[in-house]
Amino acid sequence: RAQESNSWDGAPVHEFQLGRFVEGRFVYRQLFVIRSYEIGPDKTATMETLMNLLQETALNHVMSSGLAGDGFGATHEMSLRKLIWVVTRIHIQVEKYSSWGDVVEVNTWVDAAGKNGMRREWEIRDNKTQQIITRATSTWVIMNRETRRLSKMPEQVRQEVKPFYLNRAAIGEAVEDSTKIDKLSNDTAESIRSGLAPRWSDMDANQHVNNVKYIGWILESVPINILEDYNLTSMTLEFRRECRQSNLLESLTHMEVIEAEETNSESKAKADFKSTHLIRMQQDKAEIVRARAEWRSKRKHK
Amino acid sequence: RAQESNSWDGAPVHEFQLGRFVEGRFVYRQLFVIRSYEIGPDKTATMETLMNLLQETALNHVMSSGLAGDGFGATHEMSLRKLIWVVTRIHIQVEKYSSWGDVVEVNTWVDAAGKNGMRREWEIRDNKTQQIITRATSTWVIMNRETRRLSKMPEQVRQEVKPFYLNRAAIGEAVEDSTKIDKLSNDTAESIRSGLAPRWSDMDANQHVNNVKYIGWILESVPINILEDYNLTSMTLEFRRECRQSNLLESLTHMEVIEAEETNSESKAKADFKSTHLIRMQQDKAEIVRARAEWRSKRKHK
Repeated sequence: RAQESNSWDGAPVHEFQLGRFVEGRFVYRQLFVIRSYEIGPDKTATMETLMNLLQETALNHVMSSGLAGDGFGATHEMSLRKLIWVVTRIHIQVEKYSSWGDVVEVNTWVDAAGKNGMRREWEIRDNKTQQIITRATSTWVIMNRETRRLSKMPEQVRQEVKPFYLNRAAIGEAVEDSTKIDKLSNDTAESIRSGLAPRWSDMDANQHVNNVKYIGWILESVPINILEDYNLTSMTLEFRRECRQSNLLESLTHMEVIEAEETNSESKAKADFKSTHLIRMQQDKAEIVRARAEWRSKRKHK
Repeated sequence: RAQESNSWDGAPVHEFQLGRFVEGRFVYRQLFVIRSYEIGPDKTATMETLMNLLQETALNHVMSSGLAGDGFGATHEMSLRKLIWVVTRIHIQVEKYSSWGDVVEVNTWVDAAGKNGMRREWEIRDNKTQQIITRATSTWVIMNRETRRLSKMPEQVRQEVKPFYLNRAAIGEAVEDSTKIDKLSNDTAESIRSGLAPRWSDMDANQHVNNVKYIGWILESVPINILEDYNLTSMTLEFRRECRQSNLLESLTHMEVIEAEETNSESKAKADFKSTHLIRMQQDKAEIVRARAEWRSKRKHK
C-alpha cells in the first residue's frame, strides 16, 4: 500500500505537485488547479489567491535552486548573516480570472534591481489556452531580521543569486504602474473603515501580518457595488511598515472614474474606475500599505 | 509549447492534480502538498487548511462520481428540485500537523445518516509514513436553496447516492465526540470578543460565510498563550444558522483543564485543555455555531 501511495502511477509525487526549471534554469514553472476554497462570491479565483500562488511559486523557486537557507526564501549566505528578503512593492495586472478546477501555469524569474535589490517577475498562463492571463512584478530588498533595518546586498549573496538573473520584463515599461502612490488622508478618502483587527490566522511564520492579507483589508473600504460588479484588473501595493497582531488598523479608499484613453493595463482593455488606498495604524495613523487599483465592469467584459 | 504545457511529461495534468477512486469506487483519494500560505505562525498546517482540504476532496468526489448538478456538491436530482447539501455537524481529530512541503493523502467516502441525511467521513494520511494523522466525520442534510428550509431526501436522490455508500467509520464510536455541545452564555464564558465583522473575502459562492471561516472567529476568543503553546487535537462544530456579510458577530470561549484519564481522542494521547465555544450574532444574540475543542501542549508532545 505504501508503494502505491508514495507514487502516482509510478512517478514520484513531488514531480507533479511541485514545479520545475524551464528555459535553462532561468524560469521556474509550477502548475496549480484552482481549488473550491480559493474562489470568491463570483466563483472565480480571488486576488488573494493569485498573490498566494505567486508567493508559493517564488518560494519553491528558491528551494529548488538549492539556495535556500533557514528562512522563508532567504539564501544560505543571507541566513548566515541573519538577513531576510522584504518586498517593498508589488504590481499585478489581471486579464482574466480563473474558475474552480481551471489549471494555471505560473512562471517566475528574478533580475537585479539597482545595486542592492532584486526584481521578481511572474506570468500566469491559462494552461488550456496558453493565454497569459496575469502579469506581475515586484521589488525586494534585504533586511536584518533582528534589527529590522535595511541592509546592503553582501557580495556573497550577489554571487549566489546572479547566475539566476534573467533580463526580461513581465510587464512592458510603457504600461507598468511605476509612479509613486499618493498618500490618502481623511480629507481625500471618501470611505474609511476603522477597527480592523488582524486575526491570529492572518499571521505568517514570522509572526507578522502576511502581505497577502492586506488585500482583504483594502477591499473592506471599497463600496460593495464595486466589489460585486467590477473585477480588479490591476493592483499595486507599496509596503511601508511591518504590522503585528496587536495593531488595530484603518482602511481608506478613494475611487474615481477613469476618463477615456487613460488606463494602465498591458491589455489596453478599458478599466472603468481607478482607486487609491491606504492601510494605516488606527492609533498613531502610521502608514503600513499604500495601494492603487483599477476596476473593470464584469458585465461589459464577459 | 501548448503541447508541452498541457501535459506533464506526457500525462494529462488533471490526473496528478485531482483525485481518483480507489477500493472499487467506494473511496475517493486526493493528494495535496501543503503550501507556504497554508501554514500558521508555528509553521504547520492550520485547522482551517485541514478543513479546506476536506471540503475540496469532498467536492471533487461528487464531481468525479458523475453526480454533480449545478450547485456546490449537489446532485442532478437535487439541482432539479433546487435542493442543496448543508452540513450540520463536523468533528475532526488531529494526531499530527503537517509542515510546508509535506504531501498528505485525503481519503473520503459517504454513508447514510438516518433516513434523510448523509455522513461523510475522511482520513488524512502522511504520504511518506502512511500514518493516519487526521480523522473526521460530518453530517449533512438537504435544504431548499430558495426557502432555506430543510427537506426530506427525495427517493430519486437516495437512488443516486446509495451506490456510493460505504459502512465504515473514520472515528471509532467509543471515541467519537457525539454528545450535544453546551450553549455558552455571558455567565459561562470567561472570554468574549465582540465586533467581529465578516470580510468580503469570507463569503463563499453562495454569498454566505464559508463554514471554514468560523474557525478563525472561534480562535479570536481563545487566550493567546493557548494559541501559541497548544495544538488543537480535536474540534467539533455544530452549525445552527446561516450568516451573511452584514452580520456583526461575537465569539465566546470557556476553557477548562482536562482531568486525568478524561480525553476524547482516537489516539488516547492526553490533551491538556478542553474548550467550549459559541459564535452568535452581536445584535440579537442568535446562535450561529457551537463548538468544542481539545488542546495538547506543543512542548510535551513534539
